[in-house]
Amino acid sequence: MSVVRYIDLNSDLGESYGQWRMGDDAAILPLISSANVACGFHAGSPAGILATLRAAQRLGVTVGAHVSYPDLVGFGRRNMDVASDELTADVIYQIGALQGLAAAAGTRVRYVKPHGALYNTIAHDERQARAVIDALLALDNSFSLVALAGSPLIGWAQASGIHTVAEAFADRAYHRNGTLVSRRAAGAVIHDPQEVARRVVQMVTEGGVTSVEGEFTVIRADSVCIHGDSPDAVEMTRQIRQRLDAEGILIRAFKQGT
Amino acid sequence: MSVVRYIDLNSDLGESYGQWRMGDDAAILPLISSANVACGFHAGSPAGILATLRAAQRLGVTVGAHVSYPDLVGFGRRNMDVASDELTADVIYQIGALQGLAAAAGTRVRYVKPHGALYNTIAHDERQARAVIDALLALDNSFSLVALAGSPLIGWAQASGIHTVAEAFADRAYHRNGTLVSRRAAGAVIHDPQEVARRVVQMVTEGGVTSVEGEFTVIRADSVCIHGDSPDAVEMTRQIRQRLDAEGILIRAFKQGT
Amino acid sequence: MSVVRYIDLNSDLGESYGQWRMGDDAAILPLISSANVACGFHAGSPAGILATLRAAQRLGVTVGAHVSYPDLVGFGRRNMDVASDELTADVIYQIGALQGLAAAAGTRVRYVKPHGALYNTIAHDERQARAVIDALLALDNSFSLVALAGSPLIGWAQASGIHTVAEAFADRAYHRNGTLVSRRAAGAVIHDPQEVARRVVQMVTEGGVTSVEGEFTVIRADSVCIHGDSPDAVEMTRQIRQRLDAEGILIRAFKQGT
Amino acid sequence: MSVVRYIDLNSDLGESYGQWRMGDDAAILPLISSANVACGFHAGSPAGILATLRAAQRLGVTVGAHVSYPDLVGFGRRNMDVASDELTADVIYQIGALQGLAAAAGTRVRYVKPHGALYNTIAHDERQARAVIDALLALDNSFSLVALAGSPLIGWAQASGIHTVAEAFADRAYHRNGTLVSRRAAGAVIHDPQEVARRVVQMVTEGGVTSVEGEFTVIRADSVCIHGDSPDAVEMTRQIRQRLDAEGILIRAFKQGT
Repeated sequence: MSVVRYIDLNSDLGESYGQWRMGDDAAILPLISSANVACGFHAGSPAGILATLRAAQRLGVTVGAHVSYPDLVGFGRRNMDVASDELTADVIYQIGALQGLAAAAGTRVRYVKPHGALYNTIAHDERQARAVIDALLALDNSFSLVALAGSPLIGWAQASGIHTVAEAFADRAYHRNGTLVSRRAAGAVIHDPQEVARRVVQMVTEGGVTSVEGEFTVIRADSVCIHGDSPDAVEMTRQIRQRLDAEGILIRAFKQGT
Repeated sequence: MSVVRYIDLNSDLGESYGQWRMGDDAAILPLISSANVACGFHAGSPAGILATLRAAQRLGVTVGAHVSYPDLVGFGRRNMDVASDELTADVIYQIGALQGLAAAAGTRVRYVKPHGALYNTIAHDERQARAVIDALLALDNSFSLVALAGSPLIGWAQASGIHTVAEAFADRAYHRNGTLVSRRAAGAVIHDPQEVARRVVQMVTEGGVTSVEGEFTVIRADSVCIHGDSPDAVEMTRQIRQRLDAEGILIRAFKQGT
Repeated sequence: MSVVRYIDLNSDLGESYGQWRMGDDAAILPLISSANVACGFHAGSPAGILATLRAAQRLGVTVGAHVSYPDLVGFGRRNMDVASDELTADVIYQIGALQGLAAAAGTRVRYVKPHGALYNTIAHDERQARAVIDALLALDNSFSLVALAGSPLIGWAQASGIHTVAEAFADRAYHRNGTLVSRRAAGAVIHDPQEVARRVVQMVTEGGVTSVEGEFTVIRADSVCIHGDSPDAVEMTRQIRQRLDAEGILIRAFKQGT
Repeated sequence: MSVVRYIDLNSDLGESYGQWRMGDDAAILPLISSANVACGFHAGSPAGILATLRAAQRLGVTVGAHVSYPDLVGFGRRNMDVASDELTADVIYQIGALQGLAAAAGTRVRYVKPHGALYNTIAHDERQARAVIDALLALDNSFSLVALAGSPLIGWAQASGIHTVAEAFADRAYHRNGTLVSRRAAGAVIHDPQEVARRVVQMVTEGGVTSVEGEFTVIRADSVCIHGDSPDAVEMTRQIRQRLDAEGILIRAFKQGT
């Protein structure tokens, strides 16, 4: 990455639900290269998802399925002990639904990024990870899987023949061993847009970031996640984008699998 | 139809939900040629839908998307005044979800049959019919649309270039003008399996049925619906099937569009 | 009303859902006398509802149950043809749920105001109106029912022994016969806060408003609804409140039934 | 218990949902003394719940709120990591909803029994147990809490001033230390109605059962749970009831708290 000097910026979109708004998809889309679009299980109603997909299509932003546990009221952020066959079918259902809407919008689903509690769980829990991998294998296996950089999930998915995309978090502190600082610890989330932008540049140019312990830690990331649902998400994304542009770093979607 | 002597038998399947069972898909599937599979909006949870699709694939039964209003507690049987853009997106979402699960089961969605209140409404309501037609047009337009025989919907869909399948009901009485006798009227639903079987044969061999007024009425049907959720649905379907077999009438899925 | 010079101001609250925010309950509550609190069917998740009820209790705002059709994704704004026994039970369920949360917040549910499509439908549809009335009669019948001023619902409810509260809309134009101008017509919704405030004062002091036809029309209203979910709802409510204060009109909850 | 020779038999009821049937409430109700009625979060739609409550009222069966995680598709059987304030509000909401329907049916909610995964979790997890206890304390604290016999939950609830009802399972094997044999182990569930009936009698007359290790283990149970959702639940319950009647053991609801 330090050679080619480009990075994928991804953000969570399509998270409005019926009359409830969340995020500003129209403002974020021009700034990113990959849109993780909600599929209705944690957020997203069909008409709203379709509007977001149309905007992504117009701007050439790559679309991924942001699949979740079925937990609308909890926004997919609560761990759920879902049986493997149910989880596999739930993920297939969501990807298929998004594929349908994407086709109607003139675009395609290129990757899958699990959301919230499912994302965190399958980074380390092999049973549930296997259920998600099985969903991808059951469908057209040209989907890439976006997974936490450094997590066991990446190995499990690759061993199953799935193209993986390692993901880092622009606004999260890391330990020197490459793991995320727990959200419960002070300093876990970085709120200063300039500091967040600086860290994205560091990830791209140096292949890692300075850890909370002060040492540099390698983060092999193919994509950087920009949170889009905070009040000042648009402003932060804009500043990150300006900084990357100024550094001559291209923003473009990660390379697809075969 | 009186010449070729075959008919499509379709039935509603995949209507269990989580722990709740409905119908006996395994027993009905060997008897029919087309399975209207629930898509999660009125019934059907992903793992159960997938199991039904796998059984349909093994038996070579054609699969259709049984799309509905979003009304689980009302089983899609209550009229809902859904805005057109929402209805179009809801239908696309459901077809896509079923396509995903069908792909995982090694089969494909070949047709769309709206369910319950949506089926009845779009037979005559042009605004909502248009919203459903738009959903089909937005996707791969090789889907056939199953619609009430004699309804205006058939003309609207055909004018939009959609292949239609006219459907008759084996256990429902008809007026001499070809419309269904209201469920509220006495004699609207026929419960005797032998009588139902006799009427299916009459539809195939004579191209219509005897109306409640006593006169023969033409019903141009490409497919006959067998209700699968009544307690004795399996037995009724078996008797219909035996009678058709005895008459030398083939059971096979309707011809696809181009 | 022209004698006592007070009015009830009611507004829809508790309409956030999980992570999704709607309205600014904390800002609206000090300005109104009656809070129509969502019960989970069109909006409102239990923890959010409870927080709103606690704030209402602290400020002495009267609480009502804002009952709805079961339609979260449609925000209860779509007509649904719900059977009478189901509608009665749905309404009882919602009132009970809100009573539980209200008890936990140290307050009580004093009235019932149907929401959205249900509100509009039962103003004129006797079957559904009867189902809602039956729900109130099945519970402690000290609940008041908030209903559209001038609608047949008021008579039906009173004939059943239910205390009714006639409601007018501060930001809606009226015809000279006392009916609301359809939202589809130009000028149906009044956006200027000063004009809205002026009309509330006119309703209180003159017992009616100037109709779109230019003539005065009598509106016998016990309560005026202030919409709380528009972007500038707080500002509009503040201006209405200031104007009423300046005119010496008291804001207080309508008189309860016996 | 060996002295007074009576026992409470409880069973899970009201678990149909819309068009989906589960259990045979009408057949079970005359055989039991306490009905754990679903509240809509894992099962139960308002009209169906109301019908069950009316039947319970007619037969004098005591009613309890069978509260659950919000997981309809998973029937409340999947662990969910719900935040404490959300869990407290969810439980209050469900109790309140059932109280409303119970009032409409002419009866009252006397106790709370958590369902499925919530039941199992709070038996041992103090954080979630505390959230449920807080819900009961926030309401009228005359509710009894039905909890797993021998679990820490009983102590936590009693220390908070809540009347507890210790519950044993008629069809489950126990270890000599009084804990349930895991469902995954062979012999965990007893299917022979005569053996189940014999064990209920043993619990009442001897104050415990023979464990899988062969030794007698004390089970201090105020209530015995009869599973009502298995295909032969009615027949098993009937046999248990006959055996208890033959032994002169009375079936009656546990004593309420103050």
